[in-house]
Amino acid sequence: MKKFINHIDDILVESLSGFSTAHADLVSLHLDPAYIVRKNKAANKVVIISGGGSGHEPLHAGYIGYGMLDAACPGHVFTSPTPDQMLAAAEAAHANQGVLFIVKNYAGDVMNFEMAAEMLAFENATVYTSDDCAVVNSTYTTGRRGVAGTVIVEKCVGSLAETGANLNACKALGDKVNQRISSIGVALTSCTVPAASRPTFDISDTEIEMGVGIHGEPGRRREVMREADAIITDCVDAILADFKVKNLTLGENNEALLLINGFGATPLMELYLIYNVAAKLFKQHGINIARSLVGNYTTALDMAGASVTLCLLDDEIKQHWDSPVHTAALRWGC
Amino acid sequence: MKKFINHIDDILVESLSGFSTAHADLVSLHLDPAYIVRKNKAANKVVIISGGGSGHEPLHAGYIGYGMLDAACPGHVFTSPTPDQMLAAAEAAHANQGVLFIVKNYAGDVMNFEMAAEMLAFENATVYTSDDCAVVNSTYTTGRRGVAGTVIVEKCVGSLAETGANLNACKALGDKVNQRISSIGVALTSCTVPAASRPTFDISDTEIEMGVGIHGEPGRRREVMREADAIITDCVDAILADFKVKNLTLGENNEALLLINGFGATPLMELYLIYNVAAKLFKQHGINIARSLVGNYTTALDMAGASVTLCLLDDEIKQHWDSPVHTAALRWGC
Repeated sequence: MKKFINHIDDILVESLSGFSTAHADLVSLHLDPAYIVRKNKAANKVVIISGGGSGHEPLHAGYIGYGMLDAACPGHVFTSPTPDQMLAAAEAAHANQGVLFIVKNYAGDVMNFEMAAEMLAFENATVYTSDDCAVVNSTYTTGRRGVAGTVIVEKCVGSLAETGANLNACKALGDKVNQRISSIGVALTSCTVPAASRPTFDISDTEIEMGVGIHGEPGRRREVMREADAIITDCVDAILADFKVKNLTLGENNEALLLINGFGATPLMELYLIYNVAAKLFKQHGINIARSLVGNYTTALDMAGASVTLCLLDDEIKQHWDSPVHTAALRWGC
Repeated sequence: MKKFINHIDDILVESLSGFSTAHADLVSLHLDPAYIVRKNKAANKVVIISGGGSGHEPLHAGYIGYGMLDAACPGHVFTSPTPDQMLAAAEAAHANQGVLFIVKNYAGDVMNFEMAAEMLAFENATVYTSDDCAVVNSTYTTGRRGVAGTVIVEKCVGSLAETGANLNACKALGDKVNQRISSIGVALTSCTVPAASRPTFDISDTEIEMGVGIHGEPGRRREVMREADAIITDCVDAILADFKVKNLTLGENNEALLLINGFGATPLMELYLIYNVAAKLFKQHGINIARSLVGNYTTALDMAGASVTLCLLDDEIKQHWDSPVHTAALRWGC
C-alpha cells in the first residue's frame, strides 16, 4: 500500500486540518469530538447537518457553506461518526429553527444519527438517502444504500433552508428529492482502506463489479470487463427499471439532472466519455438532460470506477439546484 | 488495462463530446481540426488560447470561459496538437486584439505552436510555462517542463485580458507569473496510456519517483517510499531552493498561493493531508499561504501521485487570481 500518509491513526485529523486550513474562509474544524462547521454561522434558519465515514471526499465537509450544509461529522475511514459528534455539531450550528440531519442509509450511520436525534434538545428531523438501485440490503445496509445522489439532496435542501423554510418543509423536500434519484456504480478496482493496508476485495484484470457500493461492498454481480458502451447501457437500464418500479414518471419537460461521479481513481477523461454514453442513452429514452455534473463528488478512496446518477427534475428541484452555493467542492452564483 | 473506453481511436472525440455536451452553456466543440471554443465569443479583447496533449484534464478545456481561456486545442493522449488546430481555434476566437498562446514547454508543443504563430494572420505572442523545478531537460523537453503552475498562469492572464489589456501586457504578466511559480511532483504509480495499454514505467510497491513529469517522464531519482512528512519536506525544499536560484524574493506580506495537485488517482483525503504538511513547512520558512487550491487540476491520466506548486504573489497577481472566473473546472465570483 502506497499512500500519502504519516501514521494511520493520524490520517483523519491531518486531512481535516488541511481541509479546514485550505478553506479557512468557509469552515472551522473542531476536534474531540470532530466536526466541521460553517464559518459564518447562519442566523435563524433550519441547519442542515450531514456526516458519515471518511474516504468519500469531498462528501460531506466539501459541501459546507452558503446554500448547502451547516456542519458535517466525519467518522474514521468507512466508519460511522458517533452521536457526540452530531450533538456537538448541532450545538455549534443551531440557529433557532431546528436541525435536519441528512444521513446515507447505512446501519451504523442510521443507529448513531438516531441516537443523536433522540438526545438532541432541539427540534430535529432526518432525511435518509437511499438512491443506489443496485441492491436491496447489503454488507452494511438494510434497504438501499445512499450514494452519490446524496449530493443532490444536500444541495436542494440546503438551498431551501436558506429561504427560511421550516423543518417540515426541508424534510419533505429532502425525501422528495431522494425518491426522484436513482444511482448505480461500477468498480474496475478495489479501494484500499489504510488501516487494512490491502485491497478490500479481489478483482482480476478482466472483471468489473457491477453495482458496487462506495465502500467496496458487493454489487449485483461480477462481470467480464467490456467496452464503456456496454457497461453504461447496463447502468442506464438499471436506473430506468428502478424508476419504473418506483412508478415515477417524468415531468412536463422530461427534464433530469445527470451526475457522472468518479470513485477516486478514474480520470476525468473517462468520466466525460461515460457522460457522453449515458446522456445519449437517456435521450433515446425521451429524457432531456437539463443539468449535468461530472467529477469526483462521492468517492471510495482510491477505487477506479464510477457511478451514474439520474435525478428527475421538477420546477422546485431545478430552482434549488440552480440557486447560489458557495462550498469547497460546489460553487456557483457567488 | 481496464478503462471506461470503447475503441482506442475514439477516446478523444467521445470524451470531448461528453465535455462539450455537459458544459454546453460554456463551450462549443469543433472537430477536424479539433478545438474547443468559448460559447459566448469575447468582443474586442486579446484572446487566450492554450492546448497540448490530452490526458491532463481538466487542463486545458476545463479552463475555457469568462476570465480564463478563449479556446483550447487538445492533441491525442500525451501528444501535441497540430498547427491547423491552433489556426482554426484562433480564427474562431479572434476578437480584434491579437492572440496569446499559453504553451507548456514540451518540444512537440513548442514546435507546433511556433509553426501556428508564424502562419497566423493575427498579431500574436506566446507564453511558455516552465514551472517544474524537478529537472532541466527531460524526455520530451529542452529546458524545464510546464506543469500544474500553468493553471495559475492561465487564470491570471485570462483575468487581465478581460480588462481590455493589450497583447504585450498579457504576455508580460504571463511571463512574470510563470517566473514566480515553482512546482515538483511525486509518482506512487505509473499512468497507463490507452494506446500503449501497459504502464508507462515500472515502479515497485516500495518506490516513488521524485520529480516525475506529467507524462510519467523520469524525475530526479527513484526513492524508497516514506511517510508523507518526509516526501513533502523534500518537495518543499526543492521549491525553496529553486526560488533561491531564481533569486526571487517574497513580497512585502510574504504571500503565496499553494496548489496541491492530484495526478488523477490520488484521493482528495490524501491531497488535503499533503496540503497540511506543505502549508506548515512553508509557514516555517516565513511564507504566508494567502491563497490555496487543492484537487485534480493538471492530471496524468490514472497516475497515483501529486505535485506541490507555490506561486509568489504580489498585488497584481493576487488581484487577477481573485477576479471572477466561470469555467468548467474553476469557478468563483459569478
